Amino acid sequence: MASNAGLEVDERSRNAPWEIDVETPNKKRSDSRDPIAHPGSVIINVQGAFIADDTPQTPNGSPGAAPEEYLQQTQDIRLPNHRAIVSHIAVDIGGSLAKLVYFSHEPKSIELGGRLHFQKFETDKIETCIDFMRRLKLEHQQQNGLNPKEQLCVMATGGGAFKYYEKIKEALGVEVLREDEMECLIIGLDFFISEIPNEVFTYSESDPMQFVDKRENIYPYLLVNIGSGVSMIKVSGPRQFQRVGGTSLGGGTLWGLLSLLTGARSFEEMLKTAENGDNTAVDMLVGDIYGMDYNKIGLKSTAIASSFGKVYRMKRQAEREAEDHGGLSNGDRGSSGTAFRAEDISRSLLYAVSNNIGQIAYLHAQRHNLEHIYFGGSFIGGHRQTMNTLSYAIDFWSKGEKQAYFLRHEGYLGAVGAFLKRQPPNWGRRNSFDGLSRMGSRS
Amino acid sequence: MASNAGLEVDERSRNAPWEIDVETPNKKRSDSRDPIAHPGSVIINVQGAFIADDTPQTPNGSPGAAPEEYLQQTQDIRLPNHRAIVSHIAVDIGGSLAKLVYFSHEPKSIELGGRLHFQKFETDKIETCIDFMRRLKLEHQQQNGLNPKEQLCVMATGGGAFKYYEKIKEALGVEVLREDEMECLIIGLDFFISEIPNEVFTYSESDPMQFVDKRENIYPYLLVNIGSGVSMIKVSGPRQFQRVGGTSLGGGTLWGLLSLLTGARSFEEMLKTAENGDNTAVDMLVGDIYGMDYNKIGLKSTAIASSFGKVYRMKRQAEREAEDHGGLSNGDRGSSGTAFRAEDISRSLLYAVSNNIGQIAYLHAQRHNLEHIYFGGSFIGGHRQTMNTLSYAIDFWSKGEKQAYFLRHEGYLGAVGAFLKRQPPNWGRRNSFDGLSRMGSRS
Repeated sequence: MASNAGLEVDERSRNAPWEIDVETPNKKRSDSRDPIAHPGSVIINVQGAFIADDTPQTPNGSPGAAPEEYLQQTQDIRLPNHRAIVSHIAVDIGGSLAKLVYFSHEPKSIELGGRLHFQKFETDKIETCIDFMRRLKLEHQQQNGLNPKEQLCVMATGGGAFKYYEKIKEALGVEVLREDEMECLIIGLDFFISEIPNEVFTYSESDPMQFVDKRENIYPYLLVNIGSGVSMIKVSGPRQFQRVGGTSLGGGTLWGLLSLLTGARSFEEMLKTAENGDNTAVDMLVGDIYGMDYNKIGLKSTAIASSFGKVYRMKRQAEREAEDHGGLSNGDRGSSGTAFRAEDISRSLLYAVSNNIGQIAYLHAQRHNLEHIYFGGSFIGGHRQTMNTLSYAIDFWSKGEKQAYFLRHEGYLGAVGAFLKRQPPNWGRRNSFDGLSRMGSRS
Repeated sequence: MASNAGLEVDERSRNAPWEIDVETPNKKRSDSRDPIAHPGSVIINVQGAFIADDTPQTPNGSPGAAPEEYLQQTQDIRLPNHRAIVSHIAVDIGGSLAKLVYFSHEPKSIELGGRLHFQKFETDKIETCIDFMRRLKLEHQQQNGLNPKEQLCVMATGGGAFKYYEKIKEALGVEVLREDEMECLIIGLDFFISEIPNEVFTYSESDPMQFVDKRENIYPYLLVNIGSGVSMIKVSGPRQFQRVGGTSLGGGTLWGLLSLLTGARSFEEMLKTAENGDNTAVDMLVGDIYGMDYNKIGLKSTAIASSFGKVYRMKRQAEREAEDHGGLSNGDRGSSGTAFRAEDISRSLLYAVSNNIGQIAYLHAQRHNLEHIYFGGSFIGGHRQTMNTLSYAIDFWSKGEKQAYFLRHEGYLGAVGAFLKRQPPNWGRRNSFDGLSRMGSRS
């Protein structure tokens, strides 16, 4: 059975790639490695992997593009025991962001092994991302020569892997392997859960960022991946997964509406703005309607009854007053926002989107009897309010019976999954039967 | 057991008021009417009730306030067999709208019986609503004299029944009885389902407004009431109900955000604007990310991946271009909206809110094994796109196994419920035990 993307439907049962071939001595594995059943999964030695405390590094002599073109980097992951050449990089191109993962060796005079690097770009500036990859390719050639078998190849996932396939292939002149987005997400998440210490954590106001150890059996769980839109994926075992739901109210909604409403120019700016906001200036609370709690159904006066529910009334009131005083109120967009602070609007929308995702995630988890809910995707951005809201929503709706988890590399699940899914050129793909190159070289 | 509001929790089992005392000959009822167990439920004869085809009428000599202060009226309901004096009116005051229901006799020279009138006000202009009620009170006095037992009383529900309790009582000098919001909603809905022909309908693009007959057993069902916020109520039998969920993303969110983004000044204007919009100008579709369908998980290229997902990119791009050309782009709110049409924004947000409510409604219905889902509340406003979206969402998520229903008097469930719940003054209320006036006069 082929494991390539885009052809089969979920519910397969195979081990994650690094659980097959990885050189981890204390890991159970089958002794009979059938090269066709397990055709040359990537050999990345993750033994002893850990999150590097130092500043994220770019490899020597590599990318020198204007730094402001790049978004904030995430901590590197050190792989102290990996020595082999890695001839691939991986990119997960979503609707708003492209996430890149690549490996570099440490300077040998200093340390053994190497590290995984994480870099984001706006999909809108895909050229910058392609430039970055081109430099990685050239660097790879400098180090490993021009042997075609050792050429860099690009593992690509996310919708942009399809949309920009020709463009990337042409611009880089390398092989581009497209991998299924959902599959990469869960391969990446499984890796982070299983192999990286201090990666997964729970969050609460009183106890922020409590790292958790790997459970004996991590399955089943729900992955809620929040990018531009939201996907909810039930994972029953290694590579056994099913997309059970989602919502179009995701990061793209927050970023889009806030860019219109507040003039903020980056996600970071929006999150920062939200931190100083008071959502009760725009949200209608139960207390605003009742003047008190609505005890009978357990709604406190401070509960949000309607997100942005105060805005229409207040805006109309201001317009009426302006009319009464002979002032101008032409209802155009320019004058409309002045009564409301960008901070309050940002916080309200952040709450609304996060709460909504939290409720829907809970309902799907409940429906499929899943206790553990992992939140991934670039929407979260390590932002405390967001994590607190999601965590609180899961706790509230499940009455404490379900647990929300977060990750330090939350935005890179798909990219890491694609990175780990590296297989010999063309194996298992439709056109591979032409060349019969199944047993092609391992990089 | 008392049936007064605000004290007990759900899951009670009693008949709806009009099913007890109503003078409907072909209706089964208990012969032994215990006046304490069934303490003087209102006697409204609903036999032969139907929706009046003529223009909604206000009773003679009544309200003459500036008509622009009133929102659009809903069709009257004719009660051809009700003759007794009705000494109460009912009002359901929500976060954004106050809904009023009152009865008037037909001019005797023309027809027998009378009719129920339906009138909305913005909660913000509660004074207009109180003025209207004051005129109804004066008219009632003119017709029925000043006998205190025949004075008009106000049945009030919704949060405003509590928030504006003193204000209404003082302004009108009448008794104000507060009733639980959820209970009134389901009493009202049960009434509409059971007694009013051509009230409940299903909606689809190919078959809009298909009226449905009353099912033999209408229970159980889910009521999704969409006002400023959204409440989802599981109804297992007459007066057996439980609020199982809700969302703060409701009408208030749509109205608030659109008033900021488009300058629209009324709900009707917003809905009308949405009708001419193209949401794909602002929404990110699966095709925008993939360049094609995402077949593996059954997402078509036309599916909305991210509501407003295109906005951030397009806005940033426009700003960059302006910068490149030396143009000014100060990122303020005034300049921000120009690239996007109010029509497209309105349609996108209407879709987003409706789809989201549809999905959450489905999930709660699924969880509680409910096949029939009624949508009420003033958010819908008889608007075809909204009903189509809600209906489609239920059909999509449930794979055709659940059915969405709508009502012509969708916004008046609570007000009608409160109207029908009329009981003798003070009965069953905490302070009634002081006066022992349980068996007080029936109106």
